[in-house]
Amino acid sequence: MLKKKVKQVIRPLRLIRGNLQKAGLAPGTVVYAGEKAPQPVKISLMDYDANTFKEHTPSTIEEVFDYKTTLTTTWINIDGLSDVSVVEKIGKHFDLHPLVLEDIAVPSQRSKVEDYDDYLFIVLRMLRFDHTKNEIINEQVSMILRDRCLITFQEMVGDVFDQIRDRLRNNKGRARKMSVDYLAYCLIDAIVDYYFVILDTYGERIEKLEDDLLDNPGQQIIGPIHEFKRELTMLRKCVWPMRELASAIQRSENELIADSTRVYFRDVYDHTIQIIDTIESLRDVVASLLEIYLSSMSNRMNAQMKMLTLIATIFMPLSFLTGVYGMNFEHFPELRSSWTYPYGFWTLIVLVATTMVIVFKRQKWL
Amino acid sequence: MLKKKVKQVIRPLRLIRGNLQKAGLAPGTVVYAGEKAPQPVKISLMDYDANTFKEHTPSTIEEVFDYKTTLTTTWINIDGLSDVSVVEKIGKHFDLHPLVLEDIAVPSQRSKVEDYDDYLFIVLRMLRFDHTKNEIINEQVSMILRDRCLITFQEMVGDVFDQIRDRLRNNKGRARKMSVDYLAYCLIDAIVDYYFVILDTYGERIEKLEDDLLDNPGQQIIGPIHEFKRELTMLRKCVWPMRELASAIQRSENELIADSTRVYFRDVYDHTIQIIDTIESLRDVVASLLEIYLSSMSNRMNAQMKMLTLIATIFMPLSFLTGVYGMNFEHFPELRSSWTYPYGFWTLIVLVATTMVIVFKRQKWL
Amino acid sequence: MLKKKVKQVIRPLRLIRGNLQKAGLAPGTVVYAGEKAPQPVKISLMDYDANTFKEHTPSTIEEVFDYKTTLTTTWINIDGLSDVSVVEKIGKHFDLHPLVLEDIAVPSQRSKVEDYDDYLFIVLRMLRFDHTKNEIINEQVSMILRDRCLITFQEMVGDVFDQIRDRLRNNKGRARKMSVDYLAYCLIDAIVDYYFVILDTYGERIEKLEDDLLDNPGQQIIGPIHEFKRELTMLRKCVWPMRELASAIQRSENELIADSTRVYFRDVYDHTIQIIDTIESLRDVVASLLEIYLSSMSNRMNAQMKMLTLIATIFMPLSFLTGVYGMNFEHFPELRSSWTYPYGFWTLIVLVATTMVIVFKRQKWL
Amino acid sequence: MLKKKVKQVIRPLRLIRGNLQKAGLAPGTVVYAGEKAPQPVKISLMDYDANTFKEHTPSTIEEVFDYKTTLTTTWINIDGLSDVSVVEKIGKHFDLHPLVLEDIAVPSQRSKVEDYDDYLFIVLRMLRFDHTKNEIINEQVSMILRDRCLITFQEMVGDVFDQIRDRLRNNKGRARKMSVDYLAYCLIDAIVDYYFVILDTYGERIEKLEDDLLDNPGQQIIGPIHEFKRELTMLRKCVWPMRELASAIQRSENELIADSTRVYFRDVYDHTIQIIDTIESLRDVVASLLEIYLSSMSNRMNAQMKMLTLIATIFMPLSFLTGVYGMNFEHFPELRSSWTYPYGFWTLIVLVATTMVIVFKRQKWL
Amino acid sequence: MLKKKVKQVIRPLRLIRGNLQKAGLAPGTVVYAGEKAPQPVKISLMDYDANTFKEHTPSTIEEVFDYKTTLTTTWINIDGLSDVSVVEKIGKHFDLHPLVLEDIAVPSQRSKVEDYDDYLFIVLRMLRFDHTKNEIINEQVSMILRDRCLITFQEMVGDVFDQIRDRLRNNKGRARKMSVDYLAYCLIDAIVDYYFVILDTYGERIEKLEDDLLDNPGQQIIGPIHEFKRELTMLRKCVWPMRELASAIQRSENELIADSTRVYFRDVYDHTIQIIDTIESLRDVVASLLEIYLSSMSNRMNAQMKMLTLIATIFMPLSFLTGVYGMNFEHFPELRSSWTYPYGFWTLIVLVATTMVIVFKRQKWL
Repeated sequence: MLKKKVKQVIRPLRLIRGNLQKAGLAPGTVVYAGEKAPQPVKISLMDYDANTFKEHTPSTIEEVFDYKTTLTTTWINIDGLSDVSVVEKIGKHFDLHPLVLEDIAVPSQRSKVEDYDDYLFIVLRMLRFDHTKNEIINEQVSMILRDRCLITFQEMVGDVFDQIRDRLRNNKGRARKMSVDYLAYCLIDAIVDYYFVILDTYGERIEKLEDDLLDNPGQQIIGPIHEFKRELTMLRKCVWPMRELASAIQRSENELIADSTRVYFRDVYDHTIQIIDTIESLRDVVASLLEIYLSSMSNRMNAQMKMLTLIATIFMPLSFLTGVYGMNFEHFPELRSSWTYPYGFWTLIVLVATTMVIVFKRQKWL
Repeated sequence: MLKKKVKQVIRPLRLIRGNLQKAGLAPGTVVYAGEKAPQPVKISLMDYDANTFKEHTPSTIEEVFDYKTTLTTTWINIDGLSDVSVVEKIGKHFDLHPLVLEDIAVPSQRSKVEDYDDYLFIVLRMLRFDHTKNEIINEQVSMILRDRCLITFQEMVGDVFDQIRDRLRNNKGRARKMSVDYLAYCLIDAIVDYYFVILDTYGERIEKLEDDLLDNPGQQIIGPIHEFKRELTMLRKCVWPMRELASAIQRSENELIADSTRVYFRDVYDHTIQIIDTIESLRDVVASLLEIYLSSMSNRMNAQMKMLTLIATIFMPLSFLTGVYGMNFEHFPELRSSWTYPYGFWTLIVLVATTMVIVFKRQKWL
Repeated sequence: MLKKKVKQVIRPLRLIRGNLQKAGLAPGTVVYAGEKAPQPVKISLMDYDANTFKEHTPSTIEEVFDYKTTLTTTWINIDGLSDVSVVEKIGKHFDLHPLVLEDIAVPSQRSKVEDYDDYLFIVLRMLRFDHTKNEIINEQVSMILRDRCLITFQEMVGDVFDQIRDRLRNNKGRARKMSVDYLAYCLIDAIVDYYFVILDTYGERIEKLEDDLLDNPGQQIIGPIHEFKRELTMLRKCVWPMRELASAIQRSENELIADSTRVYFRDVYDHTIQIIDTIESLRDVVASLLEIYLSSMSNRMNAQMKMLTLIATIFMPLSFLTGVYGMNFEHFPELRSSWTYPYGFWTLIVLVATTMVIVFKRQKWL
Repeated sequence: MLKKKVKQVIRPLRLIRGNLQKAGLAPGTVVYAGEKAPQPVKISLMDYDANTFKEHTPSTIEEVFDYKTTLTTTWINIDGLSDVSVVEKIGKHFDLHPLVLEDIAVPSQRSKVEDYDDYLFIVLRMLRFDHTKNEIINEQVSMILRDRCLITFQEMVGDVFDQIRDRLRNNKGRARKMSVDYLAYCLIDAIVDYYFVILDTYGERIEKLEDDLLDNPGQQIIGPIHEFKRELTMLRKCVWPMRELASAIQRSENELIADSTRVYFRDVYDHTIQIIDTIESLRDVVASLLEIYLSSMSNRMNAQMKMLTLIATIFMPLSFLTGVYGMNFEHFPELRSSWTYPYGFWTLIVLVATTMVIVFKRQKWL
Repeated sequence: MLKKKVKQVIRPLRLIRGNLQKAGLAPGTVVYAGEKAPQPVKISLMDYDANTFKEHTPSTIEEVFDYKTTLTTTWINIDGLSDVSVVEKIGKHFDLHPLVLEDIAVPSQRSKVEDYDDYLFIVLRMLRFDHTKNEIINEQVSMILRDRCLITFQEMVGDVFDQIRDRLRNNKGRARKMSVDYLAYCLIDAIVDYYFVILDTYGERIEKLEDDLLDNPGQQIIGPIHEFKRELTMLRKCVWPMRELASAIQRSENELIADSTRVYFRDVYDHTIQIIDTIESLRDVVASLLEIYLSSMSNRMNAQMKMLTLIATIFMPLSFLTGVYGMNFEHFPELRSSWTYPYGFWTLIVLVATTMVIVFKRQKWL
């Protein structure tokens, strides 16, 4: 069990594996280098404006290229990166930089935004809770934000965007009425807001850990505490660059971001700060749990040792007394008197023991 | 009791609940998501200039809209956010951004100021002491500062503004003679100044903790110390963004803030720095209490163990001697002499014990 | 004694009391809120240029107003703030901002400089050693630097300016020949330089503490060490804003500061940095003392416990041997031989004990 | 073995030796002062454009000077710095600053880029794994980036550039089609990417250490943990200036860096940040291993001491009882009864021992 | 010995003494306030250009004034500051600011550069190793860099400039051909480079300390470790401002620094960074030594206590057995049998002892 836990410690290392496999290849080479098992490519498309809406699941990537020139807003979503030819075709058709394609295919990037004038390249780390496996999935979402077109790449099927899709389909809220940068904002906002869900899960698990700690403090608490510390550190490393990202988009001078959308990114920025604050609070709680545990363990240990030493100390003079009366001197008047044994000796024993207990109690040692 | 304490540790987590409930909703959706039980809406209004003063408690929000165009200064205060339609109506009438309304209805924001040209949106965390429940209430106050109009939203009835209301009613001080930005300053100043009251309470409680520590140091001191550390951290997290807020308003280029008012915000800024300084001092005191406690506990423990070990060590050779004279050798001259037992043996015992005590005293072990 | 020490810990808290008493009052209200017992107001005045010098002790504040328009340099010094009407009259006559008057009357401000175009408002924390009470007095000095006029406010009689007064009276040095900003510099320089005197006192006391630690290390050293840490922290908090103050005056664009005086403030700035460096060094020394103390205490404790345990361990097999020969077996040949007791037994005892001591010495346990 | 480990600790110190040998010499004096044994100079040259390719291994440095004026791109690589006359001749021919030559010859520089208008001087720390000696080689690579010409200096034969040479020879990828700044980028990228290989090696070794820790925790784990901490610190010190270097080249205004190449350096910058992140994660893992080790050692120690003390405590009253019945009182009824010994005594012993074990179990001490 | 060590701790305090003696004096008063015993003034002068060279040792300061107007470069060096009239005369003749003279006479300044338009005032902390006293001398070097003239002030005879003097005399290197700012650079470079010599000495001493630690770990290692920590902190405090100094001169807009010299100061800047890096590495090594020491001490202590407790625990049941057979029950069949003592009893003893040792070995306690 401890074994399993430690293996998880090493997991963050795996993030470098993507870059590792690529070390030595020419820059801009598009090779899939994700940690997760490669999944088949699944393309989906939404094309809409305030009045029209069209949803489509093309089987080949070429079908989506027709939407490049429409006046409506188009959202192309690609799940699964195993077939890099898809990425390369999109790159060629939409004239993307080779490094952008490389970053999409090696899904171990930090969150960032890069401005290529014609388009913005946005990378985000999307966390989501997989309820079947009861674990957190850490996935890279890459976005190409172009004029009237947003292309998103995900490592696998499943995301936190379902409610946005519903709103687009049913024309709820502002989304259909606004331009494509607002759609990008909605996706980023959904990703950031899901961090609150993740943090709440952590909050509950830490609360449970506290109950365990109070009910039955023991060595087994150390493992989870270190695990929480590590995972919160990992979370912070995911969120911190998102904060910069939100700030960079807000201050971006690229015309793809309308002034009216900028204020929304300020809101995303505020949320990332709140997330970081909450992570810090949780880390404080975990650190404080560790201190309480250590202090209570040390106190218990000390109390035990003291009690044992007290017992030994009380029996020391008593044993000495039995030793005295066990001596074989021929002239030993006390041994001869018939009064001594049953009364004198035991009175002495009780007296000595009681005196010591009283003295120890007075000294607050007991 | 420890249970209760730990539950309070987790409380800061609840701050994220507001955002949690909203995760997935369209941005700008106005849904009340406060931690506190929703309270009925209570509207109050003050309309004044240097010469006139009018106080009013409208039953519907529509009544206050008439004051939008008056030349006098209007302060609209709304207690309770349960009925979000009130917030939405104000938002519509005063043309507020959807994100502003969302931030008002989800009262878990950090202190901040946002400039929307026509109005400033200011969020503050107001702490106040509830004397009936003997606890600190952490409430969000949202302000809309418009031309000649200030709208404030609070989570519940009760605030730290009563003295300002009195000054307005009685035309004391500068308040009635100055424009609405000065009123906003007065409210912010009152909120910031109340932190001194809170800190003074902490000061007294920490002083009491010190008395307890000195009178009767023990394990029970650990809990409150960790609690103080946590609460002071929480306080610092509340004050830190206020410092930025005061600085931002002072440097703001929006014309809603008159140059003559700016200097007052510099004063608020100074106060926030003093508060942060005091919090740091209190944290140092608490940390120092913990160190004194740990060091005195460890010293006491060591002194006890040493004393017990000394007793055991003194009895070791004594018991050995009784063992010697308890041996059953047939040729054992000492046992035969009538002189040995009452005089020789006890003299030896006393001699050995005294020598050891003297040696230990010399070595400063006793 | 420990009690007394802890009470001093709390003292920094008192800095907030000034603000506490004012919480709720209208901003700019002038109410004396110092920690120290209010003292009667004492006004003194110096009026000079390179050729003339006049010293005066007016009994009412109105007398000094005549000097407002003279072409000579005027230094008005006010000791004692109990009578706030004096502060208010000066405020009215010299047209000072209400917040300036409030900051003068609440003498718990951080060091700062505020530029009001017509005048500079400078606040400094003046430390000085009261030789009668053998304690450090922490006092606020407020300065109003106007054209050809400097007004200083102190909480009580007694300051570090006597040598400057002598130089003015006797026309020594540059002071009389230069304008009023140079006088302000001289006062600030005197305050900053006195910190070196304070630090030197600390240096000597820490040296004495070290001698105590080396002569007789013990628990009583912990208290003073924590006290030093706290006081050095407090000192740093006093000096740090002075550094900013010196830098701000040097970079100030206000014409009240002549270019030729600016270079002097760079010198003040250098001194504050040296003071901060020295405080850091002293803190390192104190921290290092604590580590040496803890390590030597732990070593002594360990050495004692080891020695006691060694004694017990050596007697263990010896007692076992006496036990063996104390057994009552009827067939026990060793007991019958007349050779065994005086020779065999004691040889065995000495042999076992010597072997153990030798083994322990070899293992470097003894 | 510990000895060997500690010697490695000191090795980073040797980095200063280069500067040490030069202390006192005139600035700009070219003296080889590398830590490694000087190696013979080996020159190699590649001259290419999109269509032509020429590879050459000149025996004297003068042969390469002909390529200075060609219109094709020239890459001159020099392995081994022992013959400083080669460096000086290049310096003279290509008009390099004396300090540049000094920095090339003293290969203990931090990574940096210096702009001399006509050329950029780039210094990098190249780490590579020597599989024969199973150790990491830390080597300085100096680059002179001129118009259509790149000169690289290495301390010894062997580098991480072989794949780039292959790509140039076989005209794979973009390299031959682009100008010389892209070649410089390729080399820097190769060096930075190799850090991922190094980090992966560390990841595996730390994983192995964890297995050891879990299988057989012991004192021997301390050495490697401290070694890892130190080496990761050293790695971070190597990478940190590379981050600044990538950022500086990207923001450089020198025309030697084409705008189209700048975006590639942003990619290098991202990689350095990922490397730093990974190093931080590894440091956290190592720190966490240390804490787990210390905590488990302390727990084991405590458990042992407690068990031993329990055994001693249980035998204390038992020995007292044997002492009691070993006393020689003449009137001792229990000793006379034939029932006492085989039944009464042993029952008492078992009863006392069992009671103590039960009590200890209840108290969770056992 | 410990005494001596601690006194050295306090030494940094003495840096403030210079300022202390001056506290209260008028600013700009020139009073020698160095920590070292004042030394007689010794003036030396070098006057040169590319073709001519003249060396001179004037007995009075007035002799050097003739060189003020020569077209050649003049280096005036003054050793010893006891006669402040020399400093004052130079100040008057070269028109230096009073604060400059004060800073020269109080040689406890941080390294800094101050721009007075006509001249640059540079202060440096020169460390050098006094081989006769085997200690490091920390001395202030003050420089006045004027047009074609450099004046240097040192606290005592002896410096690190001898090789520069030789180069000037023998016209080696660039020095004679370049202007006076290059001479200033050479001196600063020599001072900075000597830090590498100092650090190398520390490296060797720390290596020796490691050997001691490994050969014979003991309490005596604590003192030197704390000393190294303190001295490395002191070194860092000396170097850190030099870094700023080098950077400030490089970016200086004063025409006294030629553009061609600026690049050399960038080199000095790089060296200071390397020095800081090395100091950090050494601090890490020292910290790691301390941790290894503490951990090995704690392990040894634990191993000893465990071994002693084990011995005691093994003898506990053995003594109990001797106690059993020492009882005086009349009906005690085992005591009667002639088989029990020589065989049964000792078999039992060996059996119990062996079982315990085996159990302890299994539990890895032995």
